[in-house]
Amino acid sequence: MDAAAFRRYAHQVADWMADYLEQVDQYPVKSPAKPGDILRQLPDAPPEAGEDMEDIFRDFEDILLPGITHWQSPRFFAYFPANTSYPSLLAEMMTAALGAQCMVWETSPAAAELEEKVMDWLGQLIGIPATWSGVIQSTASDATLCALLTAREQVTGWEINTSGFPAGRRFRIYASSQAHSSIEKGVKIAGFGQENLVYIPTDADFAMVPSALEAAIEADLAQGYVPLLVVACLGTTSSAAVDPLATIGEISTRYGLWLHVDAAYGGAAMILPECQHFIQGIERANSFVCNPHKWLLTHFDCSAYYVRDAAALVRTFSILPEYLRTAVTGQVKDYRDWGVQLGRRFRALKLWMVMRHYGMSGLQAHVRSHITMAQEAAGWVDAHPHFERVAPVWFSLVCFRWTPPGITDPETLDTLNATLLKRLNDSGTIYLTQTRLGGQYVIRLAIGQTFTTPRHVAEAWAQICETAELVQAE
Amino acid sequence: MDAAAFRRYAHQVADWMADYLEQVDQYPVKSPAKPGDILRQLPDAPPEAGEDMEDIFRDFEDILLPGITHWQSPRFFAYFPANTSYPSLLAEMMTAALGAQCMVWETSPAAAELEEKVMDWLGQLIGIPATWSGVIQSTASDATLCALLTAREQVTGWEINTSGFPAGRRFRIYASSQAHSSIEKGVKIAGFGQENLVYIPTDADFAMVPSALEAAIEADLAQGYVPLLVVACLGTTSSAAVDPLATIGEISTRYGLWLHVDAAYGGAAMILPECQHFIQGIERANSFVCNPHKWLLTHFDCSAYYVRDAAALVRTFSILPEYLRTAVTGQVKDYRDWGVQLGRRFRALKLWMVMRHYGMSGLQAHVRSHITMAQEAAGWVDAHPHFERVAPVWFSLVCFRWTPPGITDPETLDTLNATLLKRLNDSGTIYLTQTRLGGQYVIRLAIGQTFTTPRHVAEAWAQICETAELVQAE
Repeated sequence: MDAAAFRRYAHQVADWMADYLEQVDQYPVKSPAKPGDILRQLPDAPPEAGEDMEDIFRDFEDILLPGITHWQSPRFFAYFPANTSYPSLLAEMMTAALGAQCMVWETSPAAAELEEKVMDWLGQLIGIPATWSGVIQSTASDATLCALLTAREQVTGWEINTSGFPAGRRFRIYASSQAHSSIEKGVKIAGFGQENLVYIPTDADFAMVPSALEAAIEADLAQGYVPLLVVACLGTTSSAAVDPLATIGEISTRYGLWLHVDAAYGGAAMILPECQHFIQGIERANSFVCNPHKWLLTHFDCSAYYVRDAAALVRTFSILPEYLRTAVTGQVKDYRDWGVQLGRRFRALKLWMVMRHYGMSGLQAHVRSHITMAQEAAGWVDAHPHFERVAPVWFSLVCFRWTPPGITDPETLDTLNATLLKRLNDSGTIYLTQTRLGGQYVIRLAIGQTFTTPRHVAEAWAQICETAELVQAE
Repeated sequence: MDAAAFRRYAHQVADWMADYLEQVDQYPVKSPAKPGDILRQLPDAPPEAGEDMEDIFRDFEDILLPGITHWQSPRFFAYFPANTSYPSLLAEMMTAALGAQCMVWETSPAAAELEEKVMDWLGQLIGIPATWSGVIQSTASDATLCALLTAREQVTGWEINTSGFPAGRRFRIYASSQAHSSIEKGVKIAGFGQENLVYIPTDADFAMVPSALEAAIEADLAQGYVPLLVVACLGTTSSAAVDPLATIGEISTRYGLWLHVDAAYGGAAMILPECQHFIQGIERANSFVCNPHKWLLTHFDCSAYYVRDAAALVRTFSILPEYLRTAVTGQVKDYRDWGVQLGRRFRALKLWMVMRHYGMSGLQAHVRSHITMAQEAAGWVDAHPHFERVAPVWFSLVCFRWTPPGITDPETLDTLNATLLKRLNDSGTIYLTQTRLGGQYVIRLAIGQTFTTPRHVAEAWAQICETAELVQAE
């Protein structure tokens, strides 16, 4: 493909992108593909000779597209959203054209300095203390791993990095029973062992009970464990529960624990004055993660990780072989030393274009509109005699459960809710996912897709109610 | 921005992409920016109100572009290339438009099944045993960490994941003294301690000396250490040295070590029949990594990780909270369990479009052309009385050193070579980086950028010779 052919195809794909996003509403949200449907249409070996782009595009449309779950559909209410937006999409095009490796400052000074600046900007909006430093990680899993490793190294004077785990020191990590699976994953990777991840009970709102945290720490101290780190969640994955940050911060400070704040989803809401109370006490924390790729209109991957002590982070990950040394090593931020990966895309560009295009007020309006829609939906659930809401709606996630009249057996209720969810998702016009709260099967309505409007939420609710009636009539 | 405006801007950016890549030759390869040059042009706070896209594009051109190091310039000979290509670029556009999260099969069946298939295809080209399984990781750092963790867990029966490091078992990792810094990083992260990374001496070609590996293992066993894993490199970062895989495989098998093959760069060359001898013995290995984003025309991030025992990998990383359970959990490949990150882009698409567009023959011609250019450049170095080549050229990297007449002092020679390199890079017309080999400062000419032709290499060599004469005359 020469430059002229690329230009022709790039325009063709630009139109495809615009068409796709204009029409994404019309695709089945969740792909109806069955396991093996795509595989069996793909040849077992790559072609010997190159093929025409037209054939490749056709196979993309015919074979692959039916196997895509349309995360950018306004009717996508599953998991948490994977936000994108038009300015972010333009930035992804530019980033891909530049194809720059942003591992050290010198390999693209603009990427390093823009990353520093946009992390500062976003930190101001969220309410991160001005003395903290930010870096873009791939995912919250990476950020949480960074927190665990930096805490591990700081408390041992970087001895585990040097010599490995010492005999006889058993570290303990604390998180609410609602904490995300990435914390367990990180605890395993860092070598602590999942037995040393202590799950703290939660209250009726699924928020960590601070007195239970304190009791767990005391019990561990009495048994000779070393309490190391506690995770506070601002917006858990199951129900968007919010742990009491300020109180947890007092406890972590008193016992000398690293406090990591997992606001992967909820962090976006902190840009609203009316949500700032949730982040009160952040100054006692050591690290914080929020994913703009969830709910701030920015393409994956863009996970904003903030730390109080950047030097501790860098000391944990720093490596400097001769082939990575530059004339300005030590004078600039070489972000390869701020996390696991060496290679890094120019990820700051999309966040910069999003923040400039929308402005602070535009971002606030966007997030606020989803919260408003969620509150409205919560009201509908509350008003319906045969549905119950099972968690508070602080942000844009509504957790509910169908409770048809006359049915009280817990297992039957779980089965009915699972049937309802399957029926909804199989319809193709809506996609939601489930969780368990208090042992019960619960349906999650996660609002936050970029193109979702109040009409889409109203239609979703109507479909939920109608489908429940149909299931009941069977 | 509405859909119509996006369409307009997408066409504008499509033209910018095509223009940029047509004209990339004309930019200074290495950005001339000084530390702070970009930062000081960026406001300290994000805008309150949204801004015009025209202003944002203008600032991109005026402020950011001068701070970009142009990795897609045909005159880029630094590090290893960060390959892109036109079909890969089109795929990046489509991937970004879809904005799909490919963490589990159900969240995009086509992404999961295409990933399985293209990993099979690439494995066939490289010569990976047919029974192995592949997965796309972000970076080779991630892949190497996966290998270290899976080895750690397998040898302990997944006990460290469960309970943490046992007292008194001290694991040892082996790699050549030329091994990449990501191995040290992974050894630290996994909790082994860098003291337990044993660097094995290399021969005159900078390849691991197998007898030295065996001696190190024996010495460690005698001292009560547990030899765990050895890394063999096919194409080291400093000099593209190739460790003797078959012999290392015999040793690793004899001692029961995990053998991880780091072919992040060199793996691409394995698609050539004339290079297949380097990968002889792969069947004794446990894991293998090759980065198509280095030298196979595919955008970052795309690191191909192959394992002999997929079940061991999955068992190491598996987590299954209710909110990630799907109807087909266990029947399909949920790639979230194949690595550190949960969130995953649709990365298989670009590799599929590249493999189909070029075909096996096109990919081979591409890689072979770079090797031919490197061999030609090596010949020029060898023929020049005042330059010396310091490493064999197996692939597309030429390591050389300027040895002006009458100068024998090692420090003076190092300084002169550093001066020459700085002068070359400051010119803007070429970008190379350095390393140290045998204690000496060495200049690396890494050929492999997608648009590099024999003319660019010839011009680079002419500039190197002329600049050396100018420096000498000073």
